[in-house]
Formats: sequence, C-alpha cells, structure tokens
Amino acid sequence: MSAELDRLLLEIHEQPAVVQRVLQTQVAAVGEIAAIVAQRDPSAIVLVARGSSDNAAVYGRYLFEVCNHRLTSLAAPSGLTLYGSGPRLDRTLVIGISQSGQGEDVVAYVRAAREQGAPTVAIVNDLTSPLALSAAQVLSCEAGPELSVPATKTVTAQMTLLAMLACALDDDGAMQRLQPLPGAVASALDQRPAAASVVQSLGSSSIGSVIGRGFAYPPALELALKLKETAYARAEPFSAADFLHGPLALVQPGYAALVVDVGGHSSTSAFEIASAIQGGGGSPVLVRAGELRPAPEAWPGVEVPAPVAEPYAPIVALVLGQLLAVELALALGLDPARPRYLHKVTSTR
Amino acid sequence: MSAELDRLLLEIHEQPAVVQRVLQTQVAAVGEIAAIVAQRDPSAIVLVARGSSDNAAVYGRYLFEVCNHRLTSLAAPSGLTLYGSGPRLDRTLVIGISQSGQGEDVVAYVRAAREQGAPTVAIVNDLTSPLALSAAQVLSCEAGPELSVPATKTVTAQMTLLAMLACALDDDGAMQRLQPLPGAVASALDQRPAAASVVQSLGSSSIGSVIGRGFAYPPALELALKLKETAYARAEPFSAADFLHGPLALVQPGYAALVVDVGGHSSTSAFEIASAIQGGGGSPVLVRAGELRPAPEAWPGVEVPAPVAEPYAPIVALVLGQLLAVELALALGLDPARPRYLHKVTSTR
Repeated sequence: MSAELDRLLLEIHEQPAVVQRVLQTQVAAVGEIAAIVAQRDPSAIVLVARGSSDNAAVYGRYLFEVCNHRLTSLAAPSGLTLYGSGPRLDRTLVIGISQSGQGEDVVAYVRAAREQGAPTVAIVNDLTSPLALSAAQVLSCEAGPELSVPATKTVTAQMTLLAMLACALDDDGAMQRLQPLPGAVASALDQRPAAASVVQSLGSSSIGSVIGRGFAYPPALELALKLKETAYARAEPFSAADFLHGPLALVQPGYAALVVDVGGHSSTSAFEIASAIQGGGGSPVLVRAGELRPAPEAWPGVEVPAPVAEPYAPIVALVLGQLLAVELALALGLDPARPRYLHKVTSTR
Repeated sequence: MSAELDRLLLEIHEQPAVVQRVLQTQVAAVGEIAAIVAQRDPSAIVLVARGSSDNAAVYGRYLFEVCNHRLTSLAAPSGLTLYGSGPRLDRTLVIGISQSGQGEDVVAYVRAAREQGAPTVAIVNDLTSPLALSAAQVLSCEAGPELSVPATKTVTAQMTLLAMLACALDDDGAMQRLQPLPGAVASALDQRPAAASVVQSLGSSSIGSVIGRGFAYPPALELALKLKETAYARAEPFSAADFLHGPLALVQPGYAALVVDVGGHSSTSAFEIASAIQGGGGSPVLVRAGELRPAPEAWPGVEVPAPVAEPYAPIVALVLGQLLAVELALALGLDPARPRYLHKVTSTR
C-alpha cells in the first residue's frame, strides 16, 4: 500500500461525515439561492463544470428538471472560451461546480454570466478559489482538503448540495428526505469486501461500459470515469436508451458491463439492460442502492438497501462505485491513487 | 461484399446529392422557423434526439450558442418519459431530431412541448412519421430511404439543416457560406484509399478514443458511435478538455486516438492533444476537414482542405469518419453494414 492509497481510502471513508456536515452547515446558503430562484424565476438553470464535477452537474440537471420542472442546461464552456462567443445568460441562473475552483473555462463562464446580470452560484471546496470569488453566491463542499487525484468526497458533497437545492426549490420540508443519506453512505462503505468479490467474479472479462437510466445515469458517468482513472479500464458510460442505439453491438462473451440501479423507475431499466447483456453472452454486474426491489435474476453485484428515495440514491450508488474502482485497480496490481499523467488541478481554457 | 455493404456504400456516396437537395429545397421551411424565433424570442432552444441524431443535436447546440448566442439545451427525455415529469417548456423552441421519426421518447417530448404552447420543429426523413406529425414545423432530410443500420446520409442531412437554421438566425446572406458543402463532401468521399491506408498504419493498435474540441466535438461523437456499430471498436468520444481531466491516463503504447480538426480554433486543440497522446506513447490519427493549416508534425490521418468555415466543416469531417469506420471494419474482417443485435428503428420510452 502506498501513502497515496492510504490517503485515497481515508478520503473515501470521510464521506459520511462530509455529507453530514454539508447537510448541517449549508441549509441557510441553499435557502438563499432558492429564494433568488423564486424571486427571479430564471428561464433556465445552466450548470457549468468539467470532469467529475460535470458528472455532478448531470445529476443536478435530472434533479432540477424532474423534481423542480426547471429547464436545465449543461454548458459547453468552449463556446465562450474558445470562440469568445456564448449564449445570452441574463435570464438564467448559472451554477459553476469545481473541486479546485481553478478551472479557467468554468470561471470565465460564471464571470460572463455575472457581467450579463445573471444570478451566479459557485459550488466549491475552497472558498478562496477563483470560482468562489467569481460568483455572487457560494455553496461549500465542507470536505476538507482533497489531495488524492481521483475525486471522491468532493463529488459526493457537490451532489449533496445539488440535492439540497432541489429540495429547497420544492418545499420547506423536503430537505428531511436527505436525513438518511449519511447512514446510507456509511453502509455503502461496509460493502468493500463485496466489491472485492465482485471483481474476483469478473475473471478475465473486461468492463466495457457502465449503464444507467434516469437518475442512475449520473452515477454511471462518474463510475466510468473512476474506472478509467484508477484501473485504466476502457469503460464507457451510457444511458440505457443510448446503449440500445448502437453500443449493444459490442456485447460478447468476455464483455462485462456495470448496470446502476437506484430504485424506482431506474430499476426496471436496469433489469432489462442486464438481461440484454446476458442475452448477448456478456456479464452484467449490478450496482444497487436505495429503495430496492428484488432483482429477477441472481446477477452478481453490490447493493445497499436504504430508505433513500430514487432522486437521492445516486449519492449512495456513487460510493459503491468508488469501492469497485479501487478493488478493480488492486486486483490488476495497479495503485488506484496514482494514475499516470494526471494532476489534481486540470485547467482548460 | 454483402448486399448490405453495397447498400451502405451507396448511401454514403449519395451524401453530396443529399446535401445539395437539402440546401435547395428547405430554404423556405428553415426561413419560417427563423421567423418564429425572431417573433417569439424563446428563452432557450431545446434539442431532443437519440443515437446518431443526438450527435447532430450536439452540433446544433454549438451552432446556436456560438453563432446565434441562443442558450441551447440537450434534453434528457427520460425525465419526462420515465418519471412523467419534465421541465416547463412554454418559453422555449423545441426541435426533435430522428431518422426514423419513431422514437417514442422523442415524440413524447415534442408533444408535451407543443401542448405547453412551445413552437415545435421535427427534423425527419419520413414526413409521415409520428415525430413529423407531432411537431408544428417540419424540416425534411430529403435523403430518400436509408436502409443501412449505421445511419450516414440522414445524419449529414440533419446537420446540414441545423447549419441552415443557424445561418438563417444570423442574417439573410449567411446561407451562402454553405454553398461549398456538396463539393467538399464529394472530395471527402475521394479519401477512401487514404482511410484504408491509415487503418493499415494502425497495425495492432486499437482506437480507444475519438477527441475533438469545440466544433470538432460533435463529429467526434458520431465517429465514435460509427466505430462501435461497424467495427466493434471500444472507442469513446471526448471533448479535448474532458480528456485531459482523467482519460489521458489510458494512453500507452498500442493506444490509438482519432483527433478531429475542423480548422480555426479546433486546430490548435487538435495539435495539442495529438502531441499529448504521442508523448504518452500512443498513436494520434488526425481527421481533418475545412480551412486547414499545416500540422506541426507529420501525424497519420485523412484530410480534406475545403473553403468551408469552422462551424460547417464538421459535416465534411463526418464523412471522413464514415470512411474510416468502414475501412477499419473491413480490415478486421467484419461487415460494417451488419452490426450484431441492432435494428434500424430503436425505440425507447
């Protein structure tokens, strides 16, 4: 075990406390943003982020559109930063998300929105970072320093903050739905031995995709990124719907796919996709968290039954995915905390 | 050669004529939609599509945001169809894109938008399809029947229609910029021998990613999908910015990446990424079309210099990508026109 791996595991294990801290300390800041939304009634919420934070942004989009009926767009910041020409944002609310708070294109986008008169929010772990300073409102990840290259606890915190905002935009009591989260995240951490045995069961199969539908799609995105960073797995994320539009052709014996299930409607889709993969001779592996119903077949996988409704269970599923990524890397003799070439802060203009 | 392959090649070769036909016949219909946009001034354009059509939608987003300063969102239709709950769309313009015009979720989304009072547009190849009937305005791909499972000429037509709309939203004379397109697409078709020799030069390297920045990103998405459908290549698409946020760790000897360059700002990024991949021991392959400047190194690739500005050159780059996908499949002894499991119409709710 390297010192880096010790630190990564420590950061992973801090997550129940981080989620608890966010839920306790950020209620007022979240409420202020909800009040601005109620007052300004923006025509759209625009989320701008890169990497793991962008996966949290995709989660925010499902939350705001499904739970709050608010049109939500994931920004393509390169329009603005590469071509010096972006959309009019004055009638929108713009939320920038960045672990480091340094990403130049995210900062430039939030600045441009603020100059146009849009309300702006930064979701950051460093309150003195350029992104924090560029936005009118700040939500803090309260994660403490995250030193490992693969982001873990900051992503969980970003997602928790987005879930809090969706609850606050819904009604005053909705935040109560998030109270079971710290306990459920702690239960997910107990699944490390199960994650190790799932990896063993894969044998020589390689993980080619990570699939989820609806609320299960954002954790599928992040899990695929973690598998690449930690275990160099060429695992591509797909929404279940898009997977059937072409990538299904990849399935054959030796092809494994992780299928994410966060309960509710996402379960039905997960079971269908798992059957389709099995039908093609491939190996489905389920990653399940939340209010789960029994799977129709005994597919291998990891699961955490918890009283967390479908819109919030992705936060729990994410933690299961982190453990799978770590165990896959270790089984391959790799150090998941030392990905080649990567640095903690990646800045693109 | 199978009959299916003959037909796929025929459909690929029809593209100059299809683009020409769209440019000639759809000017008035495009102008009507531009007039509606001018009159209603929607707060956002929402594009809804699946599969290859969704890659065309991503292209539309870059066009409308960069060229027209219109906030553009790519819909997640599963919110509506899976959860029965989507965003308010009454202040938006909604454009559904589908080759078959059958996709249930795309049709449901456009219907919901129209019921809410939003102006709606269908981009379809079949004017009697459910999607065409669900929208108030229709743009026709004029591609004739597309029977091959991998979509080619319909995607080119969808992208051409989106480029026409972006021009019409800009100013009356802007459509002139598209006149060189049919000739440039014909020149791209002449590059099939070059595509075959690039595939030869890959040797045993496998294509792990397809990368593009800005306007080069949408053709990278579609090229990656074509490689999966036709040659079962596990090629994942990335924006250049996101590639540096993690997936760069995958690069090693034997890892090849296609890098798309459509001139202008996308070139700078393409050269940087190609160097980074080479630096990691991997093999960059360039796919270049448009107003090109010399590459700083003699990387292998295919290219079509043409008087087509950066926002429209993705249509030409797409055709180069189709040829690469066909040649890669043939080199692997596969029939690119007969992908396993897939059917022409994929419908997801």
